[in-house]
Amino acid sequence: MADDISIYIGEKPFMNYVTDVVMQFATKKATTVTIKARGKFISRAVDISEVACKRFLEGTVCVKDIKIGSEDFKNKEGKDVRVSTIEITLGKVN
Amino acid sequence: MADDISIYIGEKPFMNYVTDVVMQFATKKATTVTIKARGKFISRAVDISEVACKRFLEGTVCVKDIKIGSEDFKNKEGKDVRVSTIEITLGKVN
Repeated sequence: MADDISIYIGEKPFMNYVTDVVMQFATKKATTVTIKARGKFISRAVDISEVACKRFLEGTVCVKDIKIGSEDFKNKEGKDVRVSTIEITLGKVN
Repeated sequence: MADDISIYIGEKPFMNYVTDVVMQFATKKATTVTIKARGKFISRAVDISEVACKRFLEGTVCVKDIKIGSEDFKNKEGKDVRVSTIEITLGKVN
C-alpha cells in the first residue's frame, strides 16, 4: 500500500515495535518501513531493526539505508538543545 | 597516515571522543575515521559523530557510511547474548 511507513521508537515494550515492523511487511505488504528515533532511543532503534531483520524476516527484508542527523529545539525551560536522530530504512530483498 | 583509524565509544567523557575524532583529521591527516560502538553506546556514537562533523569539522568532514549489525557472545554467567553494533565512517569532503 503506502510506500513510506514510518515507525517512531519510544518507551513502549521492545517487542511491540518488532511486531509492528514485522506485520507491516508480512500482512500489510509494505515494501519499505523506516524506523525513526531520537536521543537515547537510537540504540533501541538499532536493536529493533536487527531483531526484526535477522530473527523474524531473515532473507526477506534487509537494511536499505541509514541516515543520522540532528534536530535543534527548545526544552521546557526554553533552553536550546540539540538531539541526534536516526532513520533506518528496511526493505524487501529482491 | 593509516587509512582505517577506528575509535571505540565507551564510558569516557563525551568530549574526549569528539576531540579524538577532530584531532585525527586536523593534526594526524586521517582521510577517514570510523566511530564504533555497541549496545547502549550506539546513541552516544551518533551524538559524537554529529558534534564532530557539524560543530568542529563543518564543511570539511561528513558521514560517508553507516553500518549496523549484531554480535553474539557469552556473558559472565555463560549465557548467550546478542548486542547491536554501529560503525559510522567519517571522511574528508572532497
